[in-house]
Amino acid sequence: MTNRHIEILCLGNELLIGKTVNTNAAWMAKRATSLGMEVKRITAVADDVTEIAQATNEALRRKPDFIVTTGGLGPTFDDKTLEGISRALGKHLKVNDKALKMVKAKYEFFVKKERMEKVDLTSPRIKMARLPEKSEPLENPIGTAPGVLLKVKGTTLIALPGVPSEMKAIFEESVVPLLKKKAGDITFFETSIFADSVMESTLAPLIDRAMHENPLVYIKSHPKTEEEKPHIELHFSTTAKDSIIAKRRLEKSIIQLSELIGKSGGQVRVEKRKL
Amino acid sequence: MTNRHIEILCLGNELLIGKTVNTNAAWMAKRATSLGMEVKRITAVADDVTEIAQATNEALRRKPDFIVTTGGLGPTFDDKTLEGISRALGKHLKVNDKALKMVKAKYEFFVKKERMEKVDLTSPRIKMARLPEKSEPLENPIGTAPGVLLKVKGTTLIALPGVPSEMKAIFEESVVPLLKKKAGDITFFETSIFADSVMESTLAPLIDRAMHENPLVYIKSHPKTEEEKPHIELHFSTTAKDSIIAKRRLEKSIIQLSELIGKSGGQVRVEKRKL
Repeated sequence: MTNRHIEILCLGNELLIGKTVNTNAAWMAKRATSLGMEVKRITAVADDVTEIAQATNEALRRKPDFIVTTGGLGPTFDDKTLEGISRALGKHLKVNDKALKMVKAKYEFFVKKERMEKVDLTSPRIKMARLPEKSEPLENPIGTAPGVLLKVKGTTLIALPGVPSEMKAIFEESVVPLLKKKAGDITFFETSIFADSVMESTLAPLIDRAMHENPLVYIKSHPKTEEEKPHIELHFSTTAKDSIIAKRRLEKSIIQLSELIGKSGGQVRVEKRKL
Repeated sequence: MTNRHIEILCLGNELLIGKTVNTNAAWMAKRATSLGMEVKRITAVADDVTEIAQATNEALRRKPDFIVTTGGLGPTFDDKTLEGISRALGKHLKVNDKALKMVKAKYEFFVKKERMEKVDLTSPRIKMARLPEKSEPLENPIGTAPGVLLKVKGTTLIALPGVPSEMKAIFEESVVPLLKKKAGDITFFETSIFADSVMESTLAPLIDRAMHENPLVYIKSHPKTEEEKPHIELHFSTTAKDSIIAKRRLEKSIIQLSELIGKSGGQVRVEKRKL
């Protein structure tokens, strides 16, 4: 099996001061995982060129197939992602003609739609078209700032905006096809059951046994309350090319673990099935 | 001003497959920021000893004052945080007497409370007391697994459970006093206003000007919708010893920026004030 590694790098002070919960990372991680990719790391750093450059370089050294960044592509002074990436790569920022056309077309569209007189291409607006050399701009179907794609040796580096609707739109349109191509037919399957009246420490050896007998299934327990009143989610996952094989694999392991839990005095509930 | 750097390291496959949104990191970041600390980085990696060790070593090389980890302290096979930290530090895991007493006391309490016959100290239960050499266990007021504190040169490394109620309880009881001591009197102040009918790219130079005239205030714009129907949060923040000074500082910058926005044809609303 080849590597199908992806790292997510999130830029924004709002994440580091706890103002914003990082739902962008969770969305992207779920989407990439569902396509058969393996998300190796999620990193968040501040809107600071040095921090962004350092985090980018560190990620590149781990040689993932993809690094996808989110945030910091807009028109304001603290939108510093492309400056940080450029510094990491020792490249210059240059107005990209294709990107400038995209930005221009957006403002012309606004002018028409809002019946405004004119929107000048001021320097904050041109800034969104200043990309690291040899980048390819990615069409933003929702907002103004284009996404950016850049090949760095074996890694494809993709920068997306932080506004969720824009990030998701560019991801679906321009990133998903690349991930699909990389992951091939492999997809990820998951489902959960819930165990009551049994402590996680009692479940531990039972999970070990079920995983030993089902080596292609990963089982992880998530305690939902303190151990005194145990309510534990058991999450089963596997990657496979064939959904029927994956489903059978998961069902076999669920049945085995449920029996083991039953023998230990616990109750198993299938609260919701995602298969 | 001394460094008051903290890094947050989150362990858990559930974060990397997008099953769980990282609310633990946001909570901890908010809490640490409010106490005057500067959160430099949030990292999430999988339940994998090599990954945890690598992420720990990378964080240590950046020399923050604190690294706080969350997740992976429980009784199951995939609770690997302490193993990963031990590998990073070249230490051994050893049963810590104080930690074992804590774990034992918890199970004795459950036995009494639930009128159970007995709970054996099985190996998954003892596992929660196997700490890196020279660690100090931190009382867990809610669950079973103790937190762990370890000094590594200038960095204090603290491992907390991933169950939010347990993480928060240990954080409040054992971590907050350490952060307060480090940050001294410095605290963080923030507030937001909202601008309508003005594009972010129009706001950009106005923010630049307001920040230039208020160098101790950081102003960040957060577009809440696409630029076509602009609704933009403007977040003002500052750190200071004196709350009256901080409040005045923020108010002065809010008034200045509001005037600039008004002159540009935008409307400013004070939707909610956090001061």
